[in-house]
Amino acid sequence: MKFTLTKLSLCAAAVLMSSLVHAEKIVNNNITLDEVKAAQQAWGNALINISNAHEAGGVKAAKSVAKKVLDNAYGYNLGAVLFKPTLANGEQTFRTTYDGALSYFVADDKNFAQDSGFALKGWKEYAFNNAAVYINGDVALTMGHVHVTDRSGNKTTVDKTWGFKKAADGSLRIVLHHSSLPYSAN
Amino acid sequence: MKFTLTKLSLCAAAVLMSSLVHAEKIVNNNITLDEVKAAQQAWGNALINISNAHEAGGVKAAKSVAKKVLDNAYGYNLGAVLFKPTLANGEQTFRTTYDGALSYFVADDKNFAQDSGFALKGWKEYAFNNAAVYINGDVALTMGHVHVTDRSGNKTTVDKTWGFKKAADGSLRIVLHHSSLPYSAN
Amino acid sequence: MKFTLTKLSLCAAAVLMSSLVHAEKIVNNNITLDEVKAAQQAWGNALINISNAHEAGGVKAAKSVAKKVLDNAYGYNLGAVLFKPTLANGEQTFRTTYDGALSYFVADDKNFAQDSGFALKGWKEYAFNNAAVYINGDVALTMGHVHVTDRSGNKTTVDKTWGFKKAADGSLRIVLHHSSLPYSAN
Amino acid sequence: MKFTLTKLSLCAAAVLMSSLVHAEKIVNNNITLDEVKAAQQAWGNALINISNAHEAGGVKAAKSVAKKVLDNAYGYNLGAVLFKPTLANGEQTFRTTYDGALSYFVADDKNFAQDSGFALKGWKEYAFNNAAVYINGDVALTMGHVHVTDRSGNKTTVDKTWGFKKAADGSLRIVLHHSSLPYSAN
Repeated sequence: MKFTLTKLSLCAAAVLMSSLVHAEKIVNNNITLDEVKAAQQAWGNALINISNAHEAGGVKAAKSVAKKVLDNAYGYNLGAVLFKPTLANGEQTFRTTYDGALSYFVADDKNFAQDSGFALKGWKEYAFNNAAVYINGDVALTMGHVHVTDRSGNKTTVDKTWGFKKAADGSLRIVLHHSSLPYSAN
Repeated sequence: MKFTLTKLSLCAAAVLMSSLVHAEKIVNNNITLDEVKAAQQAWGNALINISNAHEAGGVKAAKSVAKKVLDNAYGYNLGAVLFKPTLANGEQTFRTTYDGALSYFVADDKNFAQDSGFALKGWKEYAFNNAAVYINGDVALTMGHVHVTDRSGNKTTVDKTWGFKKAADGSLRIVLHHSSLPYSAN
Repeated sequence: MKFTLTKLSLCAAAVLMSSLVHAEKIVNNNITLDEVKAAQQAWGNALINISNAHEAGGVKAAKSVAKKVLDNAYGYNLGAVLFKPTLANGEQTFRTTYDGALSYFVADDKNFAQDSGFALKGWKEYAFNNAAVYINGDVALTMGHVHVTDRSGNKTTVDKTWGFKKAADGSLRIVLHHSSLPYSAN
Repeated sequence: MKFTLTKLSLCAAAVLMSSLVHAEKIVNNNITLDEVKAAQQAWGNALINISNAHEAGGVKAAKSVAKKVLDNAYGYNLGAVLFKPTLANGEQTFRTTYDGALSYFVADDKNFAQDSGFALKGWKEYAFNNAAVYINGDVALTMGHVHVTDRSGNKTTVDKTWGFKKAADGSLRIVLHHSSLPYSAN
């Protein structure tokens, strides 16, 4: 009996020690599917936020919100973003620079005269459906449909590809964004 | 004197040994810009090959070449490919399966009745211009214009994004492919 | 009533369509903590297997098992392994080649005369405690103590670092292995 | 003649246009062998710097330099470092925390009573020989010998493994460091 108790005590001590020794630290730089989907949802929320700011405070207010989005959710600080917006073409098809992206969302830049400001179109609803997601280290790629609805109830669907990069602080940034209108056979 | 000479001899021996020790082995899994561009060029070559096979031997011959391209240059063996071809839409917009991709290139599949076979259109020339390339480990992303010219001299330009993954054997596979016609304001 | 039924039918159809659209495919190349720990446990199991094969069938049998371990659990097929075994020194400290690793585990190679065969020492028990794990894409690094016990009950503890690489088929391979006896101040 | 000149002019224009179109932006997050070797050399330089600071200004000066080294060249800011220093053992074998690493290099911490300060030993020379290097994305692993020589000319050789992670700003940080004295058969 006494022996058994002692054994139990020793065992408890061993478990305690073991748990101390086992307190392994984990550093994990990988991106997860949940993080990717949260970033996809955040993109839509940001689009609606810019639209709402525009309605409330005009282009200046919209631009202020758009800058925050680009500063925090896009990877222009990393050198360049592979960005092909839905409604851009010709020599300005690819918006690899911060200024090009900002103009696409809120216009008001004489260097990008074709832009009317995609985020100024009164967007109220947003949804995304992924066809597939590819996860590779700290980068994830998504492809699927994105649906946006404006204040009049008009719905627009685009084919969209995103690439997200996870930063050291755990935040995700868009490093790739290819958006296009559905192909029409006519 | 003798001592100095001995020291020199020892030194020479040490240098020899050191050079042996320095024969470091390098394992490098990273993808390079040159490999990416070679894969981009190979895609165009493959497209022309399928077109030529079609002219010489009909759909059956074209399909045979197309299968080899999909087997060797796309990542369907890895689970799925994020593929949005230029001329697909509706429920069949995204060709995440091998069969969907094959039908897009050479048609002849009743499950994809909308397809006319993109690779069967008599392509003779190919060129690509990257707006930007993003390299991250064994994956690289490209975005830019692709130009193809058919046997009648008609040129088509598309906005194209590719994602390439480098395999353990050093070969590159397309894991992402988003192609779209340029936006037209009209 | 009919209206309600119709609405329900439409709703059911919508759910069906939605579930089809939402059936996103996920390709994930990342290594997980669970996979790493399973590989760490498998290494110890393999060590005991080689020891048992040695007791049952001698060096030849042990070598046969060891080859399977090296073929399946080490990355020599990838070019080289960064392997510093516990009991190797001098010019043969680092076993970057398959033959060097095999000799370390089961000796019987005149090119590595110092080896006595680490896996032939009658190992019966194995345990590992990670101090920390670092996960980066398809590679994970571990550092901690490994404890092995021989048939006489003698326990040996080593300081051990492993690097694991996840292959396209989901299996893990050791690409780095640094093992050393604990430092003794005396 | 004129034709030739015209052709040349056209050609020059084409080259100009081409160079404009081809001005692709490259973002490359991968680590290179040269960066790895520079970081390996920098580690030795830092060790000598701490030793020199110690000789000139005592432990306080040495600690100040050591902190800068840990702040800039180790990954403690990323969560933890897998660090097994040469002369540490028992419960303090693994220095996964900043304080544990600092004490190993310059001692002067009552929580790590066993430490005598590895960087205070008057190191004057440093060299490294890699047996192998493994490069995977933004992480590289090295294994080989490191030689250090103190002010009296005594040379110490250790078996050393490093893991380096490249940060978004292009700098490299040590996330893994396993150092051990050569095995002695006696």
